[in-house]
Amino acid sequence: MNLISIRDIDSKDIEGILDHAEKIDNGKATVDLDGKILATMFFEPSTRTKLSFQSAAMRCGMEVLDFSPGTSSLKKGESFADTLKTVEGYADALAIRHPKEGAVRLASTVIKKPVVNGGDGGNQHPTQTLIDLFSIKKTKGRIKDLNITLLGDLKHARTMRSLVYGLGMFGANVTLVSPSGLEMDKKYLEEVNDKFGLNVKIDNKPDYSDADVLYVCRIQAERFADPYEAQSVMEKFRIKKADLKDAKEDLVILHPLPKINEIESSIDEMPQAKYFEQAHYGIPLRQAVLDYILR
Amino acid sequence: MNLISIRDIDSKDIEGILDHAEKIDNGKATVDLDGKILATMFFEPSTRTKLSFQSAAMRCGMEVLDFSPGTSSLKKGESFADTLKTVEGYADALAIRHPKEGAVRLASTVIKKPVVNGGDGGNQHPTQTLIDLFSIKKTKGRIKDLNITLLGDLKHARTMRSLVYGLGMFGANVTLVSPSGLEMDKKYLEEVNDKFGLNVKIDNKPDYSDADVLYVCRIQAERFADPYEAQSVMEKFRIKKADLKDAKEDLVILHPLPKINEIESSIDEMPQAKYFEQAHYGIPLRQAVLDYILR
Amino acid sequence: MNLISIRDIDSKDIEGILDHAEKIDNGKATVDLDGKILATMFFEPSTRTKLSFQSAAMRCGMEVLDFSPGTSSLKKGESFADTLKTVEGYADALAIRHPKEGAVRLASTVIKKPVVNGGDGGNQHPTQTLIDLFSIKKTKGRIKDLNITLLGDLKHARTMRSLVYGLGMFGANVTLVSPSGLEMDKKYLEEVNDKFGLNVKIDNKPDYSDADVLYVCRIQAERFADPYEAQSVMEKFRIKKADLKDAKEDLVILHPLPKINEIESSIDEMPQAKYFEQAHYGIPLRQAVLDYILR
Repeated sequence: MNLISIRDIDSKDIEGILDHAEKIDNGKATVDLDGKILATMFFEPSTRTKLSFQSAAMRCGMEVLDFSPGTSSLKKGESFADTLKTVEGYADALAIRHPKEGAVRLASTVIKKPVVNGGDGGNQHPTQTLIDLFSIKKTKGRIKDLNITLLGDLKHARTMRSLVYGLGMFGANVTLVSPSGLEMDKKYLEEVNDKFGLNVKIDNKPDYSDADVLYVCRIQAERFADPYEAQSVMEKFRIKKADLKDAKEDLVILHPLPKINEIESSIDEMPQAKYFEQAHYGIPLRQAVLDYILR
Repeated sequence: MNLISIRDIDSKDIEGILDHAEKIDNGKATVDLDGKILATMFFEPSTRTKLSFQSAAMRCGMEVLDFSPGTSSLKKGESFADTLKTVEGYADALAIRHPKEGAVRLASTVIKKPVVNGGDGGNQHPTQTLIDLFSIKKTKGRIKDLNITLLGDLKHARTMRSLVYGLGMFGANVTLVSPSGLEMDKKYLEEVNDKFGLNVKIDNKPDYSDADVLYVCRIQAERFADPYEAQSVMEKFRIKKADLKDAKEDLVILHPLPKINEIESSIDEMPQAKYFEQAHYGIPLRQAVLDYILR
Repeated sequence: MNLISIRDIDSKDIEGILDHAEKIDNGKATVDLDGKILATMFFEPSTRTKLSFQSAAMRCGMEVLDFSPGTSSLKKGESFADTLKTVEGYADALAIRHPKEGAVRLASTVIKKPVVNGGDGGNQHPTQTLIDLFSIKKTKGRIKDLNITLLGDLKHARTMRSLVYGLGMFGANVTLVSPSGLEMDKKYLEEVNDKFGLNVKIDNKPDYSDADVLYVCRIQAERFADPYEAQSVMEKFRIKKADLKDAKEDLVILHPLPKINEIESSIDEMPQAKYFEQAHYGIPLRQAVLDYILR
């Protein structure tokens, strides 16, 4: 079984993975993939995602084989398909990240071993979406009918599009807050609405007073022609400790990390900040995913 | 025990390793080196060989310690011998690759732990030769009396010289096809003939109509003074799907990989193409080798 | 439990670690940390120390997760603290090396998992000090009342200052031999004396005729304004085979490695040379340390 896009799996399978991850996290289940080998093939660096996959594999008793394209035969002119077909023989499953959209799905058609997508360009990063859904469920008990505000550059953030899909699937109320010009693609939102009936509001002001969950993502200065405007917009959208007094008391703040200065660092110590927990949830979640693709 | 050159071991030991690899590949034997540590020391990059050694070690229950010379004390001026004597203390066996001929044999005299040669310059790469012999035996049932054509730049390809040695040892009929000027060294062939009575033909035309096995290796453009000649020679020696109609129906095509364009990619899907299987045979074969050196 | 500086632990705990390492080295004890994960985070390259930690962890049944800052989110502007808080969730203990003094202690306050210092700038490298003490005890049977000569650039060598502290703690007679201008800081010596009553002699001539142990460290040419003077001083302080005839017959020579040419290479084969054994003692010693911090 492969996991290439969140759109390939139905809500029942997602719930199965989330429930399994919950049991693993609670110590009520373990995943035994003893003696199996996970190859991590990251054609684009991502320490965090790679380490999380590797740690999860180790927690399942797997061995980890790291393919580093930097020193590989690709440099000698070998095709992507040939590299995959070779490495396939060395492992039982592959976690692949690639800078080009669609490359991981292509990989999954070339090889027969299970493939999990560790992120392909601006396209899909399904385990991140599952971690996000798991983090919401874990910290708030459910997803349905929650007010969930996504804030930041929603035009370019890969994980946000997939998250909206997942939130639509599980019936959350979604508010999308982004600087003008960095809104999420309207057509994409219509598509999600056609599928699940998405309850969505769109705003250009950083307001999250009625949010149960505030999911923050980065705004990159290079998206703006004028550096002064970039600074002013980033300052306006920065989450500040002082502003949290107007938010719900049990607000949960999430962030896919790494964060730079989108969130005042004093917030890290507040009970609302759950982004490091979110990162740590990557381990049980990816254990459940490894079990899912290797089952 | 060390494995530095195919010439160090007799045919009985080679047959023992090939038979063991066959049983491992069939699931009729396992290698239990649980808790032992293999250090991979690659002073020259080779993703494929390194991953194959690492995967084989993991399949034996070993742990893998990767020494990356890039960030090592060698840069601070430490001697090769001192580096080896230190790393020796961290592992139970070492797989070493080095750009200089003879460096791995030297290493094996400096340290007391078992050493396997992962390739030393233009010299020896014994596990590749064993994989080649194993692949022939596995796909054709035997080596003796088979017509085996080696095609490509036979002057520079390290693996080809060792393979001819192994084929001589096991009584195959060898045809050597290479562009003019890239023939295998005559003196070397006489040496193999003196030892085993080598049945060998030499040709400059890419003809493999009576071959049971066609072993292709790369021709590098930089071997030619004139780039136009390089292109024309490489085109002439490229294996094309259309030409296979004149070959034996049960022809087996092998290649040490990575391949660039020596073989038309449409051939990959044909039953004759066995080079990815050949790469995968590296795992059981290297498991048998690890067992052999650590026995 | 953390191990950040040798000064954090009392002599009883040090003796406990040394005794445990002795038993591990003798095969009379094993450390079972099966299924636990050690993350190695080396923000400054050090192949030797990293491999030694990794090998020790494997000998305890641990899995090893290697964080390479080269390809990490730090480059994207993530704070040191955020990186640590994330990686903490992937492992059970962390071995950290950092070019900045105090960085590892800071790390240990940011995260909750056990941290062992793999060296922080010119400051502390406690496992090296423990290995040095262990090597003396192992080769000479004790530390107390031994004549131990430290020779080299004692002003800049991090490990030498910590070693003097350990030697003071265990009652050795210390002779410090260094070129003029590269003496160990006097104030530091007074501090150790105030604490333990240090029996110390200071010399600028490479004399070790009454030493039981000669601990050599590097003198770097770049410490001298005049390259001719550098060469002459380095030549004068080089340990030569011919000079050993004036030394005690059972002299033990140690060196933290890598060595360049501070010791004539012909000495490597003499029974006095114990520096490779010293490097290998890093494994049982670090196994005992991993047990200590994870106990």
